[in-house]
Amino acid sequence: MENQTLESLGEFGLIDRISESFQNISSATIKGIGDDAAVIDAGSKYQLISTDMLLEGVHFDLVYTPLKHLGYKAIAVNISDIAAMNGVPLHATVSIGISNRFGLSDIDELYEGIKLACEDYNIDLIGGDTSSSRSGLVISITVVGEVAKDKITYRSGASENDIVCVTGDLGAAYLGLQILEREKQEFLANPAMKPQIDNKSYVVGRQLKPESRTDIVFDLLEKGIVPTSMIDISDGLASDILHLAKNSGKGFTVFFENIPIDNQTLETCAEFNLNPVTSVINGGEDYELLMTISQADYEKVKDIPEITPIGFVNNDGTSWLILNSGERTKLIAPGWKNV
Amino acid sequence: MENQTLESLGEFGLIDRISESFQNISSATIKGIGDDAAVIDAGSKYQLISTDMLLEGVHFDLVYTPLKHLGYKAIAVNISDIAAMNGVPLHATVSIGISNRFGLSDIDELYEGIKLACEDYNIDLIGGDTSSSRSGLVISITVVGEVAKDKITYRSGASENDIVCVTGDLGAAYLGLQILEREKQEFLANPAMKPQIDNKSYVVGRQLKPESRTDIVFDLLEKGIVPTSMIDISDGLASDILHLAKNSGKGFTVFFENIPIDNQTLETCAEFNLNPVTSVINGGEDYELLMTISQADYEKVKDIPEITPIGFVNNDGTSWLILNSGERTKLIAPGWKNV
Repeated sequence: MENQTLESLGEFGLIDRISESFQNISSATIKGIGDDAAVIDAGSKYQLISTDMLLEGVHFDLVYTPLKHLGYKAIAVNISDIAAMNGVPLHATVSIGISNRFGLSDIDELYEGIKLACEDYNIDLIGGDTSSSRSGLVISITVVGEVAKDKITYRSGASENDIVCVTGDLGAAYLGLQILEREKQEFLANPAMKPQIDNKSYVVGRQLKPESRTDIVFDLLEKGIVPTSMIDISDGLASDILHLAKNSGKGFTVFFENIPIDNQTLETCAEFNLNPVTSVINGGEDYELLMTISQADYEKVKDIPEITPIGFVNNDGTSWLILNSGERTKLIAPGWKNV
Repeated sequence: MENQTLESLGEFGLIDRISESFQNISSATIKGIGDDAAVIDAGSKYQLISTDMLLEGVHFDLVYTPLKHLGYKAIAVNISDIAAMNGVPLHATVSIGISNRFGLSDIDELYEGIKLACEDYNIDLIGGDTSSSRSGLVISITVVGEVAKDKITYRSGASENDIVCVTGDLGAAYLGLQILEREKQEFLANPAMKPQIDNKSYVVGRQLKPESRTDIVFDLLEKGIVPTSMIDISDGLASDILHLAKNSGKGFTVFFENIPIDNQTLETCAEFNLNPVTSVINGGEDYELLMTISQADYEKVKDIPEITPIGFVNNDGTSWLILNSGERTKLIAPGWKNV
């Protein structure tokens, strides 16, 4: 124990360590640390609380991130955590730390994006904190939502033979980031150069302005489906599969050929000589939903075009990726990640 | 409007500007930006949400702030905002950004303080976020609490002739900060020097480990008193008087001779050649409560030893400090403050 370091623990190890040292005392605390959002008993419903901190130079690069997009994304990614509990977002608080290189017009632009996201997702900004910062921009967001008690979906409910599904398509946000990083380097080498991203608008848009899948929560409700487990894909499919598998005490088997991938994502992989498998499996920030549903719900889920089955919950306790060649490879946990 | 800058707006001007551009849409949003905590209708009760961001080099100096104290204080000052609404804290989330000069033992020490505060105030840590930071330590805390609907106290309810009261004593935290800053300079000049703070333990303790006055919320409930307005004294008495006065559309008249001040605070003022009036009126971070109560409650409030009447709500719309000489001076608003 004494020889452990932050690096050897990793982010998830640190969260486990913190979580283990705290005991919840209130009977209203249904779920504390360890899922996409905390769950509080609010009488007739459960209340959901999710929080994220975004730091300049770690989570975003203002060279290619417009402040309006950053504001939008900061709200959307927190709402994504509420959606991952099968809930609906209601309120948000936004705290910002700003260094003296930012002016009022910058703050206005940031809050324009925050406002747009609040409008798009029908939530109220109810509070926050503003402060000066010694270095760069810091944003901390908390989103509060709610879910009917019989609809809540944790990371822990996957059962053997459940069907593993994802929403939308995966990998695009990661490839968008590669494009933006390349353009940044070219701009730094030659500031007169115009960015060449016109034919990459899909993958770049997925990186700069991700959306939360609150539409899927609505679709599931309408079809009468409650997933057995769910998480949003923020760290990457492999990492998030392992979160569901670990919390459910199961293993997942997923087929690469079933994973929905946009053509632009594949084209961009080729352009960058990146392996599509690792890009799609480990690239994060798609903010799609990964869920398991019981076999009984399979017919109903087929009617939701945005949901794609990609595998099943196995009984061997290990998670596997089946490649297009038929070869199987063990999904492994990432280390400390700055996301 | 276009010529405005962040500096000319100030922190409170910026908050007003942000607040004005957002419209609340949910009927559950009782109070958004603009009080100590946001208020959400949670059925039989009101839910309170308060959030704060603390940045290294702006809000705290690790040269003289033990991480355990910092963790405790970060929780206590947020709970203070819940107490200022006459509420009881229940849950907290803690997000941290840590640069690579921090090790696991530092994080453990920080969370020890957080845990101690959670235990002292009977709240559950239910979530958060951990991330790496490019520069220094960033802490963002959100505390959720509740209050009976007929007990909630806003900044806006003060009426003419109400009695202005404060809890505890004022100015000590600011003088504690002066001591710590002096010792820091002496340490930097001569690292072999031992700190001389033994006879300053009260004022230093008030700076390093402030407590939230949740005990007063309990006392008020027991005596059947609901203050007409309330705020916690974080920015300094003058600033916080002006917040209550502005929100209530009134003026306050307070008498300096009535303000409770500890002897050590006065001694330290003399030692530093600081004017006790400005130190006590503008020194922040005492986290005591400033409230107004109706005259009908005066007899009841006299039984609470920790509450001291210091003035009254006037009818001239301006706030005044009456000095011991009898001279009156207008209370003025501070500018941008890093608190």
